[in-house]
Amino acid sequence: MPRAGHQSYVFDTPVGIRTTGVVGGIKEAEGPLAEHFDRLHSDMSMGQKTWEKAERLLLKEAMDLAIRKAELQKEDIPLYIGGDLMNQLTTTSFSARTLGSMYLGIYSACGTTVQGLLLAAMLVELGAVERAMTGAVSHTYAAEKLYRFPNEYGAQKPPYAQRTVTGAGVALVEPGFWPRVEAATIGRVVDTGLKDPFDMGSAEAPAAVATITAHLRDLDRSLEDYDLVLTGDLASVGLAFAKQMLREQGHRETDRVEDCGVLLYRADQGVFAGGSGAGCSAVVMYGYAVNQLRRGRYRRVLLCGTGALHSPLSVKQGDSIPGICHAVSLVADSA
Amino acid sequence: MPRAGHQSYVFDTPVGIRTTGVVGGIKEAEGPLAEHFDRLHSDMSMGQKTWEKAERLLLKEAMDLAIRKAELQKEDIPLYIGGDLMNQLTTTSFSARTLGSMYLGIYSACGTTVQGLLLAAMLVELGAVERAMTGAVSHTYAAEKLYRFPNEYGAQKPPYAQRTVTGAGVALVEPGFWPRVEAATIGRVVDTGLKDPFDMGSAEAPAAVATITAHLRDLDRSLEDYDLVLTGDLASVGLAFAKQMLREQGHRETDRVEDCGVLLYRADQGVFAGGSGAGCSAVVMYGYAVNQLRRGRYRRVLLCGTGALHSPLSVKQGDSIPGICHAVSLVADSA
Repeated sequence: MPRAGHQSYVFDTPVGIRTTGVVGGIKEAEGPLAEHFDRLHSDMSMGQKTWEKAERLLLKEAMDLAIRKAELQKEDIPLYIGGDLMNQLTTTSFSARTLGSMYLGIYSACGTTVQGLLLAAMLVELGAVERAMTGAVSHTYAAEKLYRFPNEYGAQKPPYAQRTVTGAGVALVEPGFWPRVEAATIGRVVDTGLKDPFDMGSAEAPAAVATITAHLRDLDRSLEDYDLVLTGDLASVGLAFAKQMLREQGHRETDRVEDCGVLLYRADQGVFAGGSGAGCSAVVMYGYAVNQLRRGRYRRVLLCGTGALHSPLSVKQGDSIPGICHAVSLVADSA
Repeated sequence: MPRAGHQSYVFDTPVGIRTTGVVGGIKEAEGPLAEHFDRLHSDMSMGQKTWEKAERLLLKEAMDLAIRKAELQKEDIPLYIGGDLMNQLTTTSFSARTLGSMYLGIYSACGTTVQGLLLAAMLVELGAVERAMTGAVSHTYAAEKLYRFPNEYGAQKPPYAQRTVTGAGVALVEPGFWPRVEAATIGRVVDTGLKDPFDMGSAEAPAAVATITAHLRDLDRSLEDYDLVLTGDLASVGLAFAKQMLREQGHRETDRVEDCGVLLYRADQGVFAGGSGAGCSAVVMYGYAVNQLRRGRYRRVLLCGTGALHSPLSVKQGDSIPGICHAVSLVADSA
């Protein structure tokens, strides 16, 4: 039973990531993490009639890749847990229809990947399913149209804005595989009153810091116990803000805090402060971070999925932007 | 470990509903289930500036009622799991901000209540949290504006349409309380190609039948083992369709299949085929159904949360309406 006020769950049994599937678009192919994708598209429409249908294809491809790498069939996947940025989670629901598994839709905005991973690992540890697939997806043109302006308008953005990632990442979670899900910390909503929807990183940073410090407190650890603390996705503005807050709270080794939205692109790619979107943490965590654990570069990584929980309507009605962050500790062993 | 192809989880430890909080609006106060609400509003704006903020108030009130009935404080609620119909789940996220607990946003459209209940019970059984609050909410004017037309336009609806419920229902899930969560069945997406967004009941009915029959198969039971099989919300058109399909599959006792959207209103209340919305199953399941179990009228009830997983955009792009249904069996004992 967890201690009162604690937010972390330490897994009893070895549950880990068996395979991943990671798909991206053009900007992602041009960035420094291209080698960590299984498939990269050179056509933003991916042969589909709408951006929304292209987004579904990205997720379906990531699912298919993770299934194929495990040498399984669709029918072997009992459950999919995931979400996206589209209203009513249509991307994920339609892809779950194609997959044919049981399905639980979830939403933590750009932090959806980690919410899905912790839920999948918990339901597998409980024995509710023998394995579960989880993931998240976004498409920059579908997101721009929904949240800001259709890309074709050519609207300007401030330099602290972020570019929604075009990509999908999924993981197959199963007992006995690695990297192992060691512990999970569920976040609280943190709202410091910021209202600029272009500056999501600053709105999410306090939530990231709250969850990272709760995780370290609950497990009686320090940043030094992790080779990488990977937020996703604060981008450069939010990451600097988060590191500053961590230092003010006495955490020294903030150099090991990195951000999915910063890692995914080079600064000269015209991506403003960096990447964002449900697909950003999905591709960097299930591509780059899992690969580095597999290759032995890292032994323990804290995945911190940060999300901005506003909507275009809540912004128009004058609300501030609530942030959230869920964390999962992955370790490079299977038991 | 679950058997391959099975969708149901039978709980090992006694986890149940400690308290509920159920709040409604004007139509709900005029309907036959009025006595099952803790609070009923006579002002659709509830003193708020927008329908969306009124929806948040409904959920906050339901949370407060469930906490107060348990003689607990906000700080005693470690986790809230829930969702709503608003884009990006803003109602639930903002109410979770006020509550201050850990928060997991979920989405199964009108089936959100049951997805939340099964996840809350699973995480409590796992020991991830000592208790969890879960629920769902909708407001008819906020939903009409988002999904169809602002209510002030006076747009016409076909007689098979449904009226979104104005209401919120939450449950506090904790070991040792009752009604007890006995088993849960996670649904698959079922899409029979229907495309009329006014006829959500017909789109959801095949999913309801798929999950009910999976549940009965997995637990080796028949409809006769339940005093009430409560779908939410097929309304009258979808309910008749679901009963017909169940009879065609050899199930006889379809009289005990009832629907939240049908029970909540009288036919002469101008609600078309009945109620719908994330709040519909929330108020009828946590109000009426839990009360009937507590009062000894029913011994075992199967809650079947049905959802239509389309969006206004997916309909405009020519997609059909995928349905889903999750089920939870509640029994009137604590062990």
